[in-house]
Amino acid sequence: VTLIAAIVPAAGSGERLGAGVPKALALLAGEPILAHAIRALVAEPRVGLVVVAAPPGLESQMERTTRGAAGGVPVRVVTGGATRVASVSAALALIPTDVAVVLVHDAARALVPGQVVAAVADAVLAGAPAAVPAVAVVDTVRRVGADGSSETLDRATLRAVQTPQGFSADVLRAAHARTGSTATDDAGMVESLGHPVTLVEGDYRAFKVTTRMDLLLAEALLADSGEAS
Amino acid sequence: VTLIAAIVPAAGSGERLGAGVPKALALLAGEPILAHAIRALVAEPRVGLVVVAAPPGLESQMERTTRGAAGGVPVRVVTGGATRVASVSAALALIPTDVAVVLVHDAARALVPGQVVAAVADAVLAGAPAAVPAVAVVDTVRRVGADGSSETLDRATLRAVQTPQGFSADVLRAAHARTGSTATDDAGMVESLGHPVTLVEGDYRAFKVTTRMDLLLAEALLADSGEAS
Repeated sequence: VTLIAAIVPAAGSGERLGAGVPKALALLAGEPILAHAIRALVAEPRVGLVVVAAPPGLESQMERTTRGAAGGVPVRVVTGGATRVASVSAALALIPTDVAVVLVHDAARALVPGQVVAAVADAVLAGAPAAVPAVAVVDTVRRVGADGSSETLDRATLRAVQTPQGFSADVLRAAHARTGSTATDDAGMVESLGHPVTLVEGDYRAFKVTTRMDLLLAEALLADSGEAS
Repeated sequence: VTLIAAIVPAAGSGERLGAGVPKALALLAGEPILAHAIRALVAEPRVGLVVVAAPPGLESQMERTTRGAAGGVPVRVVTGGATRVASVSAALALIPTDVAVVLVHDAARALVPGQVVAAVADAVLAGAPAAVPAVAVVDTVRRVGADGSSETLDRATLRAVQTPQGFSADVLRAAHARTGSTATDDAGMVESLGHPVTLVEGDYRAFKVTTRMDLLLAEALLADSGEAS
């Protein structure tokens, strides 16, 4: 029985990292960002299936990359949709009904530490319908109103949300089956069905690698941890 | 006439960066973080005075560091207070009354680009009582309520605030003269007097260097820009 399946929506064509490839295939320390993300997920031993949503035409390339990083964990690749939600829906359709927990993970959060993946999985296995990792917000945050004026929010009450986000498979299926949701992320969709979202401890290393500056940081972290040669 | 003065409250004893020294004296690419921050400020040619608030006992050391980085711009060092606001107040007392604009800058935002300093100064010189640099928030942000539940905020309306924060000198003096303010930053104090705060374009490179991970990023950015040897 596969207890936990991981979905990685990697169909985004964002090419901010250059090189004319989708961001999940941009290189980080010589390997696609996607490969780092997959390795981080399968480091959690309860993850028994990985489903990647790839951009049309790049399915085989992403399958090779994913398989090479998955260390023997079964891999499926689907063609992603036009939105992140559509890609997650397509991936969800491939997940067997005996899977209890689904993790949805941004490929760009390539260096998420194993304890974050474990904490999210643990929370859902313990009964939370949804669990997301979050960290304290470092900067003062202001909210800008429609008139251009802004006000400072109480930073102590704010949390920056990361991934993987974990869900009871049934709850995530119900959220995706409901048409017309305007939520842009899975936690929001589940919440709009009335389920609470549990926050677990994230880690600043689970930041999104989307700009050249992020890539510099990710490479410095890898070199520092001795993972890069 | 000194058009613009810069205040750097560097009295914090936070030693998260290790080495048993206040964070402003922790080394970044072989030089104190404070030295980088001062160089970034004086790169703006209209800055004609720098006042640093130092921890008690470290005044001379910070004065040497500041002077070495200030490139001939006059430097004053005061003993900081127990809070950031107290340190800014102490520094403000040393600023001549003919100074039009005061910038308040976190030493930890060591790599703020020159165009951010210029944009803040320009906004205040153009008549804004207060101007702060801000950038879009990358992560989804949730606000946690008193009962532990949380809700997603509309990210499009959020801005992460950086420094230097710029003020009309008169407005900043009035804010500091008013006793009993509970605001923890200068923009908040000025706002509580009824003055609007103008947001100008910040830059992700103006992040706060407070953890070892931040230091790795700062060193990678310096190496990348060719500033480090």
